[in-house]
Parts: sequence; structure tokens; C-alpha cells
Amino acid sequence: MSWKLPDIVSPSGDIFRQALRRQTELTKPPGSLGRLENLAARLAAMQGSGRPSLERIWISVFAGDHGVAEEGVSAFPQSVTREMCRVFTAGGAAISVLARQIGAVLEVVDAGVAGPLASPGLVDARAGNGTANFTRQPAMSEAQRDRALAAGAEAVSRAKRYGALLFIGGEMGIANTTSAAALACALLGVGPERLAGPGTGLDGAGIRHKCEVIETALRVHGEALRDPAEILRHLGGFEIAALTGAYLAAAAASLPVLVDGFITTVAALLAVRMHPVCAEWFLYAHRSAEPGHRLVLEALGAEPLIDLGMRLGEGSGAAVVVPLLRAACALHNEMATFAEAGVSGG
Amino acid sequence: MSWKLPDIVSPSGDIFRQALRRQTELTKPPGSLGRLENLAARLAAMQGSGRPSLERIWISVFAGDHGVAEEGVSAFPQSVTREMCRVFTAGGAAISVLARQIGAVLEVVDAGVAGPLASPGLVDARAGNGTANFTRQPAMSEAQRDRALAAGAEAVSRAKRYGALLFIGGEMGIANTTSAAALACALLGVGPERLAGPGTGLDGAGIRHKCEVIETALRVHGEALRDPAEILRHLGGFEIAALTGAYLAAAAASLPVLVDGFITTVAALLAVRMHPVCAEWFLYAHRSAEPGHRLVLEALGAEPLIDLGMRLGEGSGAAVVVPLLRAACALHNEMATFAEAGVSGG
Repeated sequence: MSWKLPDIVSPSGDIFRQALRRQTELTKPPGSLGRLENLAARLAAMQGSGRPSLERIWISVFAGDHGVAEEGVSAFPQSVTREMCRVFTAGGAAISVLARQIGAVLEVVDAGVAGPLASPGLVDARAGNGTANFTRQPAMSEAQRDRALAAGAEAVSRAKRYGALLFIGGEMGIANTTSAAALACALLGVGPERLAGPGTGLDGAGIRHKCEVIETALRVHGEALRDPAEILRHLGGFEIAALTGAYLAAAAASLPVLVDGFITTVAALLAVRMHPVCAEWFLYAHRSAEPGHRLVLEALGAEPLIDLGMRLGEGSGAAVVVPLLRAACALHNEMATFAEAGVSGG
Repeated sequence: MSWKLPDIVSPSGDIFRQALRRQTELTKPPGSLGRLENLAARLAAMQGSGRPSLERIWISVFAGDHGVAEEGVSAFPQSVTREMCRVFTAGGAAISVLARQIGAVLEVVDAGVAGPLASPGLVDARAGNGTANFTRQPAMSEAQRDRALAAGAEAVSRAKRYGALLFIGGEMGIANTTSAAALACALLGVGPERLAGPGTGLDGAGIRHKCEVIETALRVHGEALRDPAEILRHLGGFEIAALTGAYLAAAAASLPVLVDGFITTVAALLAVRMHPVCAEWFLYAHRSAEPGHRLVLEALGAEPLIDLGMRLGEGSGAAVVVPLLRAACALHNEMATFAEAGVSGG
């Protein structure tokens, strides 16, 4: 693999412990803010600051097409990947609305949509013209995989130049729940019936067909699925590789990551398998309605913050959760201590 | 009861159905925004508008003291009710921070804190000088109960004059989880061991003592606990009565209510038992770590939006959830439809 894994260190244990101590001094019963207390302390530790902030947030949505779409594994035609890229930049997609609402920078990266650059407003980081159909051959070459991983790292460089304090990755790619489920099967060693779900809206027969397609792919590539980088190359998508590269680069750059849903969590699992320390830089936004998400989260020991039955992708679940993280930070930074307020302790 | 139940009608079924139809036309797989879709439609129906808004939000925190505190049922001394009222208005409490963050109006209402008006910045709506110890006598007189119910309705009048589009009630009162658990026991006909919990931080022995105190109260008042208004009078608190009155008045004024945690949910249950239609105006913010909350939510058929282990009260769980409701509204109002965006349907 020509793409070099970055160096990653852990967030500050000292700042984490100081922040937890401060939580016990604020004017509230100890522990009564629940998970918001630990969240604030983790963000403080990641940002290396006693007063965590989420003022500047960066969202990169990576788009890519999947050769396996020709197996009829999605409720939508492949052209929708390209069409939705236009909607993202025009401001009418869910992630466009949510990014405006939280005041985040939103960029859309063409990591390999089928055809020419999907829309004029996109970042051009194309690793190919859609992946190959992985039921017949590897989804991508080594060079393509490394180009897509680097595309993610480049997005993180832009986020850092902006001064981002949190990184969110989103994805768009018709058939990418098939790719994500296949990747998770290979990484976790479980069958597709536990990881394939309706995606954008398959019925029971559609899900059974999707499982057969994934089984074929796992059989065809068999021995080649020996490490995370090769699993990604054989079964992945350009947008999933870009997310993996972005998550590794964010951890290396001490930039906290808020992971979105099923597909992005599979990218997080790939990143953690490549470099386990990066897990300490990841927060998990929500539990998707896509049934395979639960298993992938469990493999990561991840407990997402909300479960509202969302299953849209685009980074939308993460964007919805940002205000909860901001509330955790504001409470941590702005509440009075018992001593400051002259209130009797318990 | 001299306090008259208001007239309450249901939110608009037509607008609800129109809003759900719009959700199927937006550029996303149908249903992929999960519970946010139904939330937007319910808010639209309650506000009587195809484009729901949560621009102006009103928070009333009601404070009251409890005679039963002298039975040693709280981890904190009674003086903390008064002390926290000062922190609310000084801006250092959790609800102060959260109200600022969401741009909500925050008022603190003294519904009956022990001693004189608890703090100069408070709304004076005192129904008494703390309640009586309900292990020995009714917590309040009929006149006091009706005064406290009216105090809640007056808060809603202020909210309506401001033009509020959502009402949040919060509470503060040392020993009020004991009162709330006793109320829930009487309303649901279950024993205190299923409803009493640690509150601000009791240990196992403290919870057993709290159960005994509640059992005593249920035995002492026995036959008198025959309807919700009498249950409220015998076992309630001034802040809980004010919340009940506020919730009924909000429903009567077509003002959506976001219910907070354990104590406020018991007030919601009282309101629903007094006038079942008001339930259609309530949204439930979070599942508290206080174990009795689950049972009260189930009795209401309520499914809260988040579960982060919070157990602070003050309206804090509701304030934390407001941005999720705002996200639901923004998505509903601002996303492009498939037709507008020229995207292929599924």
C-alpha cells in the first residue's frame, strides 16, 4: 500500500480527568447531566483545552458510484448519485439544510461518481469512474484505493486550514449499503443476513437478493480479503475509502470526528482496524434504522447518542446531533460551580 | 375544585396529513428521516401551519418546597431550592446556560418556596410557604392547589403574549421526586418500589426509606386519593400543580408543550387524567435516569426523543432536545422536493 498510515496519539488523559473533576463542582447533583458530562470531558481532552468549543464545524460529503449497482441492489437508479450531488450544492438536500442550521461549512467531494465531474460546485478528487462490479473483480485498483484514501486526508487538511474543531464525514452513492455490508461481513467474519438491510427501501425479496450478491462477492474474493486495506480495495467504494482516509487523518491531526450512520461507521471500523488508536478520536452520532449498524457499532464498542430511526446518510444524523455536543460544551464552560454560586453541596 | 378545566381541542388532522404527504415528496428515501418526519408533522398540526417554526420558545421554571423534606428523603438540604432560584436568575444554572444557547425566554416562578420570595428576579406566584408534610396531612389546601394550578396558566398567558411557539416547563424543589413518585403511585396504582429512585443522589438505604415515607403517605390518605385533583392536593407540590395547570392551559391555547423529565411527566400525567385531549399537545423530550420515569412514560404511551442518562430537572432535558425539533422543522420547510430538484424517484 503506497498510502502511508499517519502517526496518531491519544487525546490528553490529564485534561480529561480535570474536566471530569470540574463536572463534579458545577451546580447540579453529581452525574445528573448523564452522558453530556463525559462528552464534554472527551471533547476537552481531544481539543487540548479545558473549555471545549464546537464553534467551527466542517462537513465533507464524499460521493462515489458502485459497479455493483448493476446487480439491482438499490431501490434507486445509479443516476441519483449524480443528481443528489447537484442538490447538495444547490442547498435543497437534508445535509444542506442541516449544515446551514448548525452554521457548518459543507463541501461535496466527487470521489468517483460515474461519468464526468458530477456537478460544477464539487471538489474534484475522483479516484475513478465509479468502482467495478465487485461480484466479478476487485472494486478498485491499489492506486485507486490510495487515491481515494488521500482524498479523505486532503479534506481534513482543508478542514484544519479553516480552523475546524469537529469533522463530520457524509456519503452519497447508490448501492453503497451493499458495499458497506460486504465490507462489514469481511471485517467481522459474519454472514450478510446479519448485515444487509433495506438501504434506501428494498423489500424482503430485495434484501435476500442483496445477501446473495454479497455472498457471491465474498466467495469470489475469498483469500484476497486478508487485511483491512485489501478488504477495502476488493469490496469498498471510493467514498468509503475517502471516509476511511479522512478519519485516520483527522485523528492524526487531533481533530475530533463525529461519525454518522451505517456506511460511515463501516469506514470508521476500517480506520480502527488499520490504526486502533484512532478510535479515541471518534464520537458516534446516532443508531441508524439500517439493521447492520448495530453490529458494527458493537464491534467498535460504540454507544451512539441518539436513535431516531434515521437512515438517510449524507452526514445527516451527525449534523442533527451537533447541538447536543454544543449543549455539553456550553454547560461545561458556562455553569457556575457550587463555590462560585454559594450553594450548599449534597 | 374552584379552578375550572379549560376547553381543549385536538390539533388539525388535515394539516398533519398534508405535512406527512410533503415528507414523502422531499429529496430522500421515504421514511429515512425517521421520527423527525412525524415530529415535523405533529408540530405543523399543532401550530396550524404547513411550515412549523420554533423560533420563539418560552421556559417557565416553577420552584416550590416540600414539607416531606423533613423526613430526610433528599441528598440535599431544603435551603438548596432557594439557593438554586438565585442561580437560575444569575445565569449559572444548567437551565440558564441552555436557555441562552437556544435563545429561549427563561422565567423562574416562585410557586411556594419556604420563606419569603426566594429571589428578587422571580415571578411571585406563591401558593404557600412550602407544602405541608404529606405523611401527616394533605400537602396543600384546595385553595392553595387552585392557586398553584392558576399560576401555571398565568405563565402560559405570558408565553402566549410573547408569541411563543413552544412551551417548556421546568421545576426545582428539594424532595420533589418523593412527591412525584407518590403521585404516580396513586395515579397508576402501583407500589413505591417501582417509582421511587435516587433523585439527586440517594443510596440504596435512602431509597428504601423514601419508599417507606411514600407508603406511609398512601396509607394515611387512602380513601381521599379518589381523583387526580385530590391526589394532587394530598401528595403534590406547588411547582407540580403549577406545571399541571400550565400544561392544561397550553393545550387549551394551542401551544405545543415539550415535557422534560420524571417530575414534569408526572405533572403531564395529572393533566391527561384531568383532560385526556391535552395529551395530543405534548411531546416528550428525554428518558430520565430516574427509574420511575419509564413507567410514567409507558402509562402515557410516550416515547421520548433521547436517552442520555440525564436526571437534573429544571427543564434541562427539554432544552437540550429543542435543536432536534428545530432540525425537524428546518428539514420539513427547506428541503427540495424530487420535482423541484429534478431527481429520479425510487
